[in-house]
Amino acid sequence: MALYVEKYGGTSVGSVERIQAVAQKVAARTQAGDQMVVVVSAMSGETNRLLCLANELHEAPPARELDVLLSTGEQVTIALLCMAINQIGVEARSYTGSQVKILTDNVHGKARIVDIDASPIQQDLDKGRVAVVAGFQGVDAENNITTLGRGGSDTTAVALAAAIKADECRIYTDVDGVYTADPRVVPKAKRLERISFEEMLELASLGAKVLQIRSVEFASKYNVPLRVLSSFEDGPGTLIIDEEKIVEQPLISGITASKDEAKVTVRAVPDKPGIAHRILGVISDAHINVDMIIQNISDEGLTDFTFTVGGADMAKSIALLQPLAKELGAADVVADDDIAKISVVGIGMRSHEGIATNMFKALSEKGINIQMISTSEIKISVTVRKKHTDLAVSTLHDAFELDK
Amino acid sequence: MALYVEKYGGTSVGSVERIQAVAQKVAARTQAGDQMVVVVSAMSGETNRLLCLANELHEAPPARELDVLLSTGEQVTIALLCMAINQIGVEARSYTGSQVKILTDNVHGKARIVDIDASPIQQDLDKGRVAVVAGFQGVDAENNITTLGRGGSDTTAVALAAAIKADECRIYTDVDGVYTADPRVVPKAKRLERISFEEMLELASLGAKVLQIRSVEFASKYNVPLRVLSSFEDGPGTLIIDEEKIVEQPLISGITASKDEAKVTVRAVPDKPGIAHRILGVISDAHINVDMIIQNISDEGLTDFTFTVGGADMAKSIALLQPLAKELGAADVVADDDIAKISVVGIGMRSHEGIATNMFKALSEKGINIQMISTSEIKISVTVRKKHTDLAVSTLHDAFELDK
Repeated sequence: MALYVEKYGGTSVGSVERIQAVAQKVAARTQAGDQMVVVVSAMSGETNRLLCLANELHEAPPARELDVLLSTGEQVTIALLCMAINQIGVEARSYTGSQVKILTDNVHGKARIVDIDASPIQQDLDKGRVAVVAGFQGVDAENNITTLGRGGSDTTAVALAAAIKADECRIYTDVDGVYTADPRVVPKAKRLERISFEEMLELASLGAKVLQIRSVEFASKYNVPLRVLSSFEDGPGTLIIDEEKIVEQPLISGITASKDEAKVTVRAVPDKPGIAHRILGVISDAHINVDMIIQNISDEGLTDFTFTVGGADMAKSIALLQPLAKELGAADVVADDDIAKISVVGIGMRSHEGIATNMFKALSEKGINIQMISTSEIKISVTVRKKHTDLAVSTLHDAFELDK
Repeated sequence: MALYVEKYGGTSVGSVERIQAVAQKVAARTQAGDQMVVVVSAMSGETNRLLCLANELHEAPPARELDVLLSTGEQVTIALLCMAINQIGVEARSYTGSQVKILTDNVHGKARIVDIDASPIQQDLDKGRVAVVAGFQGVDAENNITTLGRGGSDTTAVALAAAIKADECRIYTDVDGVYTADPRVVPKAKRLERISFEEMLELASLGAKVLQIRSVEFASKYNVPLRVLSSFEDGPGTLIIDEEKIVEQPLISGITASKDEAKVTVRAVPDKPGIAHRILGVISDAHINVDMIIQNISDEGLTDFTFTVGGADMAKSIALLQPLAKELGAADVVADDDIAKISVVGIGMRSHEGIATNMFKALSEKGINIQMISTSEIKISVTVRKKHTDLAVSTLHDAFELDK
């Protein structure tokens, strides 16, 4: 007997039949003696339907009212799922974000959870009832309805699991776990049984779209074991846990690729103290995220300063830097979005040397040119030409024998 | 400058265009200096859509969850209407029943309002904002979502008007007021400028489907001037106010007909003390409403005991009474739903005699047979054969010169 929080996304509850399938699973586990809290999203398509209505009425709908509107999506799902569970003969009660209650800050559309009072849910669990909670929503201190933004239902589930000290938080999704690489690119890619929070954070932020980064941060902070698994087929999925609980730490856990990257270079800028600060200051003031940063060795007092941003921010970055480049006496600003970032992630890296060397060797043997390199304790990232993306990923997957 | 509560039903907010039309009206009044609170129902069709989903998942959906589900209908409308009002340049804020807050008892599906804390709305009004409130819903003392049942949005509007001491509560509907008779039956029927609460209560309960009886009771109790008017065309509608404020009290205000009636007779029952109590006790224990009651004069110690119920309750009433009839030694139980109830309503009746005589005379001149009669201070009701319904209504409309 254990206490689980399970989260089902919009596709998993996208029709009456799928809601019934979720109800069957949840009821069966409850009847087997487990305590169940279920977090659900809006039925797939519902959020878009509501957004369309909003956009017909306002060119830029007020954020407070948009949250009132969108939060009805999950409210419909919690009621329907409770009905389906009740029909099977297991008692279930629904909770909106306001009823739980999930207290957030007042940033409508991307609110952050501040506190959870899960006492009504605890009472239901004590009585053998299933508690079904609306994901993605909360209320601020003035009782205004808020939404948590993208992937918010994952965060709701993890935060609830932390609040009620669940044994495990299970995120049901349309993939059956976290893989060593994208299986569409590397058919031999293997599902990981276990992975550490830290590795998952690197994988999530690097483009593995399985889990939103905020929910992993939350799970890590409160040490909630997190399992990713498929709504549509049975299987153990991937368990994301504290590093210390992973006995055999593999050298490398996974390889990710991101094509949504651009590099921006301020060329031949006079190499004086503070130029990095001046250049990056302009970019961060515009709320553009900078990823990799490289400053070449100075040649005759001039240097090239290069960094990467998201592909969508390239044009804006150039426009922001051109006046500054003039002011600094630099030659010009050039940019290139024909790049991809390939990353190798693994906590085993900490205690092993030579990973970088092996990585560069494998890539060069295939004639793949490396443009930029950046490293962290558990990650090595390089940029390559976009056309080399898939080849680089499968080459590294082979080189580190991730299919073994 | 005045303070208004306005209620728009499902048809009035049934599409994006209609929501925009309501927003225009509300914004214009706010800009002209009035303070506005708007109560809305779910968009027409939405409640049925949600009920269909519920019925697919549960043969008898749990009442608590049904309220969670159905209350999303109004929540969608309040958000959309606020967006539309904001788009015009007038600030508006939405409130769910939980946010107002509208405290109810815990009878899901037909909860009664216990208390309203309208302080957040008052703050908005003080700041020149429009407050848009979800009709039909509230929360009980344990913060469970409740719905008020049929016509609940009218009740929400009147209760809010009482709580904030509005100058007038306006119910927008698909008719342009209360008429002296159903205009489809009596083309000469006239719209009433004013009518007393008491008369409106009689008219509402007798089949004039303009307003739900509970909202009129509420308005009467708290003395809230109530106006019924059309969403789709301009006009003064009908003002429903305290009797004392009506200077010229007409003899008769209106004539109503109800075809949904059945009469049930226990025949030749031994006339002993307590038989009325025995017979009606069985009926009221089954939560069946009894309307008219007649006990004929005893003939050789036997009497016929007759009463009317709603047409849908006829079969059940017979089934309940048959064993009792045997026990009491009555001949048998017979019933007849080929009847209609015609009522003449008017506060002027109190001070005038001869209304009943005129009524019976007019009907008999047309060959309409009267079966049962019941009277109250401001109402005379008779039952006739169903086929005589329309003729009876137009005959009485002429007899009392209501088109003058």
